[in-house]
Parts: sequence; structure tokens; C-alpha cells
Amino acid sequence: MEARIHRIAAGAPDDVSGIEAQFAAGRIDPRRIVAILGKTEGNGCVNDFTRGFASSALKAMIVRATGEASDAVERRVVTVMSGGTEGGLSPHWLVFEVVPGDAAADGEMALAIGTAVTRPFAPHEIGRAAQIDATADAVREAMAAAGIARAEDVHYVQVKCPLLTKSRIAEARADGRDVATEDTLKSMAYSRGASALGVGVALGELSREAIDDAVVCRDFSLYSNRASTSAGVELLENQILVVGNSRAWSGEYRVAHDVMQDAIDSAAVIRALSAAGIASLYPLDAESQQALCAVLCKAEASQTGLIRGARHTMLDDSDIASSRHARALVGGVIAGVVGTTLLFVSGGAEHQGPDGGGPVAVIVRKSR
Amino acid sequence: MEARIHRIAAGAPDDVSGIEAQFAAGRIDPRRIVAILGKTEGNGCVNDFTRGFASSALKAMIVRATGEASDAVERRVVTVMSGGTEGGLSPHWLVFEVVPGDAAADGEMALAIGTAVTRPFAPHEIGRAAQIDATADAVREAMAAAGIARAEDVHYVQVKCPLLTKSRIAEARADGRDVATEDTLKSMAYSRGASALGVGVALGELSREAIDDAVVCRDFSLYSNRASTSAGVELLENQILVVGNSRAWSGEYRVAHDVMQDAIDSAAVIRALSAAGIASLYPLDAESQQALCAVLCKAEASQTGLIRGARHTMLDDSDIASSRHARALVGGVIAGVVGTTLLFVSGGAEHQGPDGGGPVAVIVRKSR
Amino acid sequence: MEARIHRIAAGAPDDVSGIEAQFAAGRIDPRRIVAILGKTEGNGCVNDFTRGFASSALKAMIVRATGEASDAVERRVVTVMSGGTEGGLSPHWLVFEVVPGDAAADGEMALAIGTAVTRPFAPHEIGRAAQIDATADAVREAMAAAGIARAEDVHYVQVKCPLLTKSRIAEARADGRDVATEDTLKSMAYSRGASALGVGVALGELSREAIDDAVVCRDFSLYSNRASTSAGVELLENQILVVGNSRAWSGEYRVAHDVMQDAIDSAAVIRALSAAGIASLYPLDAESQQALCAVLCKAEASQTGLIRGARHTMLDDSDIASSRHARALVGGVIAGVVGTTLLFVSGGAEHQGPDGGGPVAVIVRKSR
Amino acid sequence: MEARIHRIAAGAPDDVSGIEAQFAAGRIDPRRIVAILGKTEGNGCVNDFTRGFASSALKAMIVRATGEASDAVERRVVTVMSGGTEGGLSPHWLVFEVVPGDAAADGEMALAIGTAVTRPFAPHEIGRAAQIDATADAVREAMAAAGIARAEDVHYVQVKCPLLTKSRIAEARADGRDVATEDTLKSMAYSRGASALGVGVALGELSREAIDDAVVCRDFSLYSNRASTSAGVELLENQILVVGNSRAWSGEYRVAHDVMQDAIDSAAVIRALSAAGIASLYPLDAESQQALCAVLCKAEASQTGLIRGARHTMLDDSDIASSRHARALVGGVIAGVVGTTLLFVSGGAEHQGPDGGGPVAVIVRKSR
Repeated sequence: MEARIHRIAAGAPDDVSGIEAQFAAGRIDPRRIVAILGKTEGNGCVNDFTRGFASSALKAMIVRATGEASDAVERRVVTVMSGGTEGGLSPHWLVFEVVPGDAAADGEMALAIGTAVTRPFAPHEIGRAAQIDATADAVREAMAAAGIARAEDVHYVQVKCPLLTKSRIAEARADGRDVATEDTLKSMAYSRGASALGVGVALGELSREAIDDAVVCRDFSLYSNRASTSAGVELLENQILVVGNSRAWSGEYRVAHDVMQDAIDSAAVIRALSAAGIASLYPLDAESQQALCAVLCKAEASQTGLIRGARHTMLDDSDIASSRHARALVGGVIAGVVGTTLLFVSGGAEHQGPDGGGPVAVIVRKSR
Repeated sequence: MEARIHRIAAGAPDDVSGIEAQFAAGRIDPRRIVAILGKTEGNGCVNDFTRGFASSALKAMIVRATGEASDAVERRVVTVMSGGTEGGLSPHWLVFEVVPGDAAADGEMALAIGTAVTRPFAPHEIGRAAQIDATADAVREAMAAAGIARAEDVHYVQVKCPLLTKSRIAEARADGRDVATEDTLKSMAYSRGASALGVGVALGELSREAIDDAVVCRDFSLYSNRASTSAGVELLENQILVVGNSRAWSGEYRVAHDVMQDAIDSAAVIRALSAAGIASLYPLDAESQQALCAVLCKAEASQTGLIRGARHTMLDDSDIASSRHARALVGGVIAGVVGTTLLFVSGGAEHQGPDGGGPVAVIVRKSR
Repeated sequence: MEARIHRIAAGAPDDVSGIEAQFAAGRIDPRRIVAILGKTEGNGCVNDFTRGFASSALKAMIVRATGEASDAVERRVVTVMSGGTEGGLSPHWLVFEVVPGDAAADGEMALAIGTAVTRPFAPHEIGRAAQIDATADAVREAMAAAGIARAEDVHYVQVKCPLLTKSRIAEARADGRDVATEDTLKSMAYSRGASALGVGVALGELSREAIDDAVVCRDFSLYSNRASTSAGVELLENQILVVGNSRAWSGEYRVAHDVMQDAIDSAAVIRALSAAGIASLYPLDAESQQALCAVLCKAEASQTGLIRGARHTMLDDSDIASSRHARALVGGVIAGVVGTTLLFVSGGAEHQGPDGGGPVAVIVRKSR
Repeated sequence: MEARIHRIAAGAPDDVSGIEAQFAAGRIDPRRIVAILGKTEGNGCVNDFTRGFASSALKAMIVRATGEASDAVERRVVTVMSGGTEGGLSPHWLVFEVVPGDAAADGEMALAIGTAVTRPFAPHEIGRAAQIDATADAVREAMAAAGIARAEDVHYVQVKCPLLTKSRIAEARADGRDVATEDTLKSMAYSRGASALGVGVALGELSREAIDDAVVCRDFSLYSNRASTSAGVELLENQILVVGNSRAWSGEYRVAHDVMQDAIDSAAVIRALSAAGIASLYPLDAESQQALCAVLCKAEASQTGLIRGARHTMLDDSDIASSRHARALVGGVIAGVVGTTLLFVSGGAEHQGPDGGGPVAVIVRKSR
């Protein structure tokens, strides 16, 4: 098999015309799409309906193109919309396609991807052990689907997870259950955090024994270096996309990752590029920019209130959510290195990299 | 004479304790302060009262320290507060001090600064020729005060300028005058733009003949590469700080500048550092970070709606003002290069550098 | 014919389950729906995608229910989404249905409705005479469709109109055209204003001769008392819904209106209720609340910066758009009178009622 | 003694010119001011510096007028700034003055006021029993100071209380203490809630035995009908103002209160006016408007997510804090009744009235 990735600009949350143009040109086969990641221009928080709008437009697009039933598309294609294009971030789609292909003749590794979906979670399970365990299972399932046996060959795991709304909290109460938090914005953090811990368990980064409900969004010394989790109001289950390299796959793409230790850690971005085979010129020259197909990373405000000893105001700002500040900031740091704002920077990095930092993965086209 | 610059963290808009600690330690003489620039944590827009709060606290601090009358302090010390610490920007003060000193024995240039203040503007003058001309005159006056004869030795001109509020617009109407714009947020742009054009005229970057009321905030091909202008509700005149190098001054500081062609132009930052004598390692090593005393720059959203061909959403966002997005973004780009968030990034770069870009100046301590 | 109105709560911008439940119960015939108004929970400004999301969900719902083609539904049903549920406003749908029926035997007037759509506007036409004239024609067309001959029997005209985005402005420029404003948020005001002036012309409230491009959003002494216009990114034409009373229609509903002279003019609400036959008890008792089927009104911040001599801060607030403040305020004033937050309060009342005020219409079920 | 109240418009957070004009005219004696309440135009949340700016300007004003030392003024005058003038709310000051006077000859009750201040709280005490008990003691002390023996004669208790910032939380941690919440915005709720419970205990509305740390911001069935508490970053202690009626006082003012059961409960406002002797015409006529000197009330979003069964979106909005929505809404409800926007509507009514509602007090000038 061969994995391909297409980065396509979006003019609005429901603007799928760029993808459809690729269908028409024969450059993407809609039946072979396995996942679509999207940066959409909402607030990325509780009442961000651009994610649902985008998901709905993408599914309708595939239904139109393939004639499949809507729920078949839903089961077959993982769509992970990350809201928030603060600062210079540019709305876009990342379309992952899997086409038939032999293993690379040269024995080199190539990009490999796999997907899986958990069962729907009850409101009281969100942000807790039930979500952690189901996520870990689904990551293993997606690795198997991708034909990746070694955890070290996984470089990025995207999880889309649910959040609590007032009505879901009420539902839990009606069932006599309490919830991880009654603050709807904070529930996004708990869901992202539990999902990331699940990834860390599956990849052997974390010991399952060290984890219980109480550590979620509390003990940030526990984290995955490869998880990227994103919460949205439009789903109740966790959707998983595993991205790695494998000798069983062919094609011209390769993925690498590193971990930003804080929000301005440009050195980590350069290391990730270097690991992926892009020489560490800074800023990237035109040729390297061409070779860079996607950047995926996490952003968050450090809980210490500091970045390298200097105070930030993100956590004390009641007008703009800290995740919005953080995306704008990290988007700037990375755009300064790579020379484009078409970056999948996702907010809220609880248990994804160290406090205030986060994983960064790059997918590049190998030079031939 | 010798110019010194002190970068001091602020814990709140009225937190002057860090400066007072330097007074107590004998490291700053309050009588020799000529200007204070501040990044304060408001929204940087019309209703940002953190600027006025900070100015008020700074003046009271000097009055307490020197026993001067409040209005004497007001005339003697230029205080320019720039609101908005979006993304990772860290609230801080830049205190400019002038102490006696001989010209450098080695004939090298050293940091030189001068200040001036225009008359108060009537509301109908803001954003128009009257403001442009008075600013140009005041820049020349400040250059003379700094002992800088050649425009090319000026690397940064900070202007603090007024804005229109609903009541000032009403005042103009009562006088039978119209105003440049009735949109209070937009009036900040007009005032910044006219002030920048005045700087450009004084520095010989722009021909006065090419400029009239109609070009302000319309013809963005006209701009200064060294102006940084900032609007606030708390003043009616323009306050000017000229920063350059001169052989008539001594001391260990030097300033250089470059121009970001767009919001993610990290190469311009590196060039400015290089011109100031800091080798262009990226990101800066610990020694270079120590030598870097201040970064001053402008940020804005490009009117094209694009950054290197990719759409940004700053101008279509009705929840967060575009200047807030732009500060967060440019702060990230520069922090990724220099390794600190103590950056004086000011929003709204109308006629300050090309559309979507802006001047960036760096003040460094020369290696000895 | 008989006009019916159904007020149905929405749990999200795409939550049409409440309407579908009425289909299932046989209480609404999807083939007879002529218009749906919706309050959706976006920001009501430029980047409010909840309106488009809602429109898209409503159309898909009708397609599912009737089997019609999507563009046939688009032509047949006017959908006007008004974003913004600030303060206590509650997201909901107002479904207008027309069923066969004889004229009322008792010779009494009953609710009558009619719709029309203009041609799509080019970007340079928005906020100008072309939009005014096309709107006036379409209002006359909708009156004819409603069988309302006398302008005085029209009590409410809802217009949904387009706005300018950065890309539409660029399109105009590429055609060598200028636009009414380059500020995308402000373009909503121009489009609403021109549309309202068109309504005023059609209803004989305004003389066409008194109106040209220059008065739009400038001379607010020119206004309609019955127009309610709402701008959205999701359309290019004006969609019109005329609501009045007619002896040619039967049924139990009736509409009346009055004009709020300022944002807190609760007396106007009481007068409108009284004109519609609801006794002016305050607040409404349970029976009157039952009889009240819909409240439709406009809200805006007065350009004077004052409400009855006291300063408001809506126009100087750079964090929250003034239309958002105004909707919250007027929603409170009206909810205090009528006892529910299911109110269609729409922001931006340019040329719709006097400065700072706006029309308010009530639809009631006649007592039998 | 005689208590007087002056309602004076403010043009900005530091605009004390209206009060100073009253000093100059001899209508207020600065030495007799005991409290100043202010509505200032910040966001009313964590990073609202307009409160501190206003407090600072008011204290400097009194120092200038009386020649007192700054800390003497601080001890003598309670200043309670409530941030947030959303919707139509108009920034203003309520100046409370106590002048010598005999008890009323007619034996009628007149307005009586008293103040008190608690000790500063350590960060870990905020939102907990220590704050509850110290507040209850201070309320009793302020009642004694006001000469009010019976709790039923107290109609309004204003408390200004501290909040947690990131640095205060860090301070607690350094002391080995945990805090009530690590969410700075939420800490305002805990501080307000604990303060209100303290008032309820002092007034005999609540049994001290029923209250412990765990009920704060959890069991909202426990509340005071007369507490109004407001949190700010600028203080560490609780400041208390008790407002009631007493036969020991003379003068033309009287206070009354009622409790809004939800955010749109205009009937409670009418009842309070009626209890204070203003006939319940609606909306108030010009004479009654003249007699009404101040309205003080609390606003909050109901935790149920509903207002009379209809969904509100305040708690799911990540762009605008729910307290901002709630102030705008309740300001509209009350302005519709009383005909002015000069209303002291304060956000966050935890344990102040029932969930989603809040106390409303009116101070009127008695007809003579």
C-alpha cells in the first residue's frame, strides 16, 4: 500500500471545492480517502460549530462523489476538525489517501497510516479511565491496521474526542452520575488529556499502572510525545488516526517528530525537519518548503504562567481563551521556521508533551 | 552623553516595583529617565485603559522618586504604552536613561536618543495633514536633541498618538468639522498612519509632495521603514522618541533595524541582529540572548487577506481584532528567533513597512 | 389561504429535530413551508458560520422530507438566519406555513405572508442604489404574492442580504470597481441599510428621490418602521419575507407592530402587543404569553453614544461588537415584558427605525 | 446622622470630574464620604484593570480634596468597583455620604449605612470557611456601625472580595497549601460565593452549621437574598457596605429590596419599587424616575442552561464570559422597567438569590 497526503486550502468551513477539483483532475480518488484533518476558522472552543459544519460538508462531498451511504462514509473516513486559525494560521484540509502499492523495493520506510474508532462514551466517562483504556485499545487497533508493529515507528497519533455540554452534563446527572468537570470549556481539556494518556499507554510511553482518574489534567509530568488530541461537540466517540513509517508501505512520503519543550522552542521544529531529511537551513529555502507536505503540532499555555521565566498573560485573559492565544503563538514560531501558515496547529496539549510545549510532526516528500 | 536601556518585567499595568527596585539599587537614576516604553496587557484597541493606568502609575512613581511636580514629569519623560500582549508577549517596561559621558574614545557609534512632543491635536486633525506635518517637525526636533544629523543614523522612531472616541467626534461636530473616520477603532489606524507618514517625511523616506489626506490608510505603497506608531486614548498630542546611533555618544549600546516584508519574515529579524553585531545563529544561543537588550517591532494583518499566498482570517474575525491576532503571530515569529517573549511588538503598522509587514529594530550590548 | 407560524426550539445551529418531530406528528406539512427564520448562536457578524450551517441543515431537512431537489427547495423556501443569541436570547426556528383556506367568514383580517428573491448582487452593488431598487421591487412582488394591496397592512418585512468579504472585495477590484466599504464588518451595515431603505421605498415610508448612495449609513433620519434586515455570508441575493394582515386570508393569527424609539423603549413593545389584541398587563400573564407566537425586532447601539442621556460603551468596545451588546440589551428589555427569551432579536438596525431604536412586530393567536 | 447617595456619570474609569464638580459646588463633602460604588467599563473578569484604575483615581481624588494621607483614605472609605457595562449599562459612581443629623422627628425610617473591612486573606482561604466567617463578622460590625439592630432592616450588603491569580496560586503552593480552584476566572465565583454565604449567616438567612467548604459554588439552594458580592484583583481583604433603614437616621432616602427568581423577573423589580414607595406604573413615569436614586442588583447565567424552560447559550460561549452576557441581559430587563441605564448591575450571583436570579435593591427619595 501507499499513503499519500494532500494539503488543500479552504475558503470557508464548508468550502470543499479545492478537494473536489482534485477529484475532477483525477489526483485524488474519493474511494481511497481514509482520513481528513481540517483547520477550521472557529474559536476552537465549546461553541465552535465550524468543526461540525466542515465535517458535514466533507461527508456530503464524499457521498456525492462515491454514491456511498452517509453512514458508510462516516465509518470509513476519520474526519478530525481542529477549530481555531488564530494569528496567521490558514484554514486548510489534509487529505490522507491510501492507494495500492508494493512495499518499497529499496527496503526504505515509507509513510504508513491506520485508523480506528472507539465506542461512544457516556458523559460520565469523558476525561476518565474508561476513555483512556478505550483509546489505548483503538490506537493498537489502528497500528495493526497500518501494519506498524513497533511503537517507535509511530510518529503522530491524532485523536478526535468529545466534550461535555450543559445538556450532556444534565444527562449524566439524570443517570445519577457525576462528571469529570461541570465547566464545559474545561471538559475539552479533560477529554483531550485522557485521550492523550491513552495514546501514551498504547505507545509504551506511559505505564497504565501510573494512571488513574486523578492524574488527568493534574499530573502533567505524565505525557505522550506523539499524541495530538482535539475535542469537538459533534461526536461522542474517539476517532483515531495513527501516522508512522513502515517498510511494508511504498511511496514518497515520510514522517518524523520531535517535542517542543515550550511554546517558542523553534529548535524542536528544526530537529524534526532534520530527522525527516530536510537540511536545517533557516528559514527554509524554496526547495525545502516544497518538500514539506504537512506540519502537525500542539499548542497550549504553560500552567506556570511563564515562558522561559517571562510572564505570559494567556491564563488570566477573560476575553480570549488561552488555547486561542497559544495557537497564534506557536503558529508564529513554526511559520517563522518553515515559511508557510498552512499549519495544523491544534490547541490544548494536556498530557501531549511537557507543560506549555507539545509534539510537532512533519510529513515530507522524500527527495528522489 | 550616554544612553542606557533597561528591560524590566511588569506584573500588572501599574506594577512599577521592578523599576523602583532599580532606583533603590542605584542602577537607574529617576532624574535621568527620558522615556519609558511599556507593553501592557489590555486589548490594545479603543477601550484599552491599561495604557492610561500604566502611564499614571509611571508618572506617580517618578514624582515619588524625584519630588518633581507631576506636569514637569509629563513634559520631561515620554511614556509610550503599547497595549496588547497576545500570544506569548510578556508585559514589560523599556526604560531609556541618559547619563553624562564623553563621546566614545574609539570613534565608534553608540546608542543616541532624543524626544519631542507636538501640540495637542483637535479631533478633526487626527489622521490628516496637520498631524503629519507636526509629527515631521517633532521628529526633526528630537533628532536635533539626540545630536543625530544624518537621517540614516536613525533606526527607530516611536510615536505615541491620540485616537478618536465618540465624545471627541461629537466635539468635532459641535465645531462644524468632520473627522477622518467615525469608527473609533479605525481612528487608531488613521492616527498611526498619519504619524508614520510624518516620520517618513522627516527621515527623507517619503516626499511631502506625494502625501495628502487622501493617501492616509489608502495608499500603503507609501511607508516608513523606521516608524513605529501606537495610538492611545490617554493623550491628544503626539509624543516622539528617536532612537539611533551617533559618534557623539558613548556607552555600550547600539541599535540596528530591518523591515519584515510580511508577518512571518524571520529572515528580516536575523538580518537586523546581524547588522547589530549578533551572529546569525538560529535560534540565538545564551550569550547572544544576553547581549540582546530590546526588540521593537510592528505587526499587522495584510490587507490582501493573504500571507505568502495562504489565506489568513484576521480581517474577517469579528470576535478578535486583527491587531490582536497580528501581535500574537509576529511575537511568535520573533520569539522563535531570539528565545524570549519580552518583545515590544506593537499593533497596527499602517504606513510602517509594507502591507502586512513592519519595521523591526534591535538594541544590543556591544561585546567588549 | 391560511398562514401558520410555529416557534420551535433549537439545540444547536443544525438541530432540526424539533421541526422534524412536527412533521412526524402531522402538525407541519414540509411541502407547505414558505419561510423559516432562525436565531442561531454565532456572533452575528462577519465570521458567523452558524447561519450557513443552519441554512444547510434546514434545506437538507426539507429535501429529506419531501424528496424535492435541493435547488427547488432553495427557490421555494426563504430561510433567514439571524446570528447572535447574546444575553438570554434562545436559539429557535420560526416556521411559516401556508395551507389552503377560505377567506375568513367574519371579514376579519388574518395573517398573510409572501416571499420574493432578488437577483444576486455584484460586490460593488452591495450597500448602494442597485440593492435599494432591487429590494423595493422584490417587496412589491412579495406583497402581491401575499395578496396585500395596501402598504399599511404590511407590519414586518424581513430581508436577508449579503455582505462583503475580503475575497468579494478583491473580486470587485479585479473588475475595476470600488465597493461601499472595505471594512467587512461594516459592509454588513451597508447591506442592511440599503435593504431597509428599499423596504421603506416600497412601503411608501420614504421617497425614492430622497435616496442615493450617499445617504446609506449616513443619514439615519431616513428609515423604515417595518423593515428588519439581516446580513449573512452565505448568500449573494436579497431574500424577502413580507408579513401583514389581509381579509383574503383566514386563520387564527394576526400581526401588529410598533417602533422602539431607543433600545430600552419597553412602552413600544406594550403598544404593539395592545395593537395585536393582547391587553397591556405587565409583565404578561400566562394566558397572554400563550397567545404570543413570535416577537421580531431589531437592535442596535445609538450612534450618539447615549441612551436617554446616559453614556453607553457599546461603540467603544473593541472586544465585543456593538451589535452583540445591542441584541443582549434589547432581548432583556423585551423578555422583561413578555416573559420569554424565545425572541427573534436581530442586530444592526441601520435605517430600521430611529437611531438606536428599531421596529418590533408581534404575531399573536387571536382569542376565540 | 443622615445618609445621602449621589449617582454621578463617569466618562472613563478614571473620570472623577463629575464628583469633583459636586465638591466644588458644595453638594458633597469629601470628608463625609464613607463609600463609593462604581460601574466601570472593563470585562468584569480576571484581567479587568479598570477597577483598580478607578479605585486608584478615586483615592487620589479624596487625597487631593481633603489632604488626608492615602492609607487613611483607604481605611476610611470603602470603594467597590464592579467591572462590566455590557449591553446598555452606563458607567457611573454611587457616592455614599454620611452627614450629621437628628433622628427623624416623624419616627419614620430613613436610609442607614455602615462599613467594615476584614483582614487580608491568604490565597488558600479564598472561597472557603475562613472567608465566610470573617465576612459574617464584618457584616455584624458594619450593622453595628450603621446602628441597625434587626437583620430585617438590612436590605443590601455589598461585599468587594479578592480573587486568585496565577501568582497567588503559586504563592499558596509554595506554602504547601492547595486552593479552592486553580481556574482564575472561577476563583472569582468562589470568592463571591463564600462572601455571600457569610452575609447570609450574619443576616440569619442561613445556618452556619449547614455550611462548609464543600457547599461553596456547589449547593446553590443556600443563598442570601440581600448579598451582592463582587471580586477584583486589586484587593486581598473583603470590604463590606451594609445598607438598610433605621429610625435612628434622618434624611429623605429609603431602601427596599426584592429577589429576582430568574434573569427576566421584572415583577421582582416592580415589587421592590413598590416596597420603596414608588407606585408600580410600568414603565416608570418621569416623576418616579426622578425619585429613583439607585438600583443595585446581581446577574448571572442559570446553571441549568435554561430561562423559563428556554435554552440560553451563556455557559457554552467561549468568546464572551457568561457574567458579561448576564449583566447585559439583566440590565435590559431593569432598564425596561425603570427607564435608565444608570444601573449598578454586578455579575456573578453565586449564593446571592436563587440560581440564575439575584437580589435587587432600590434606593429612592421619599416624596415630601
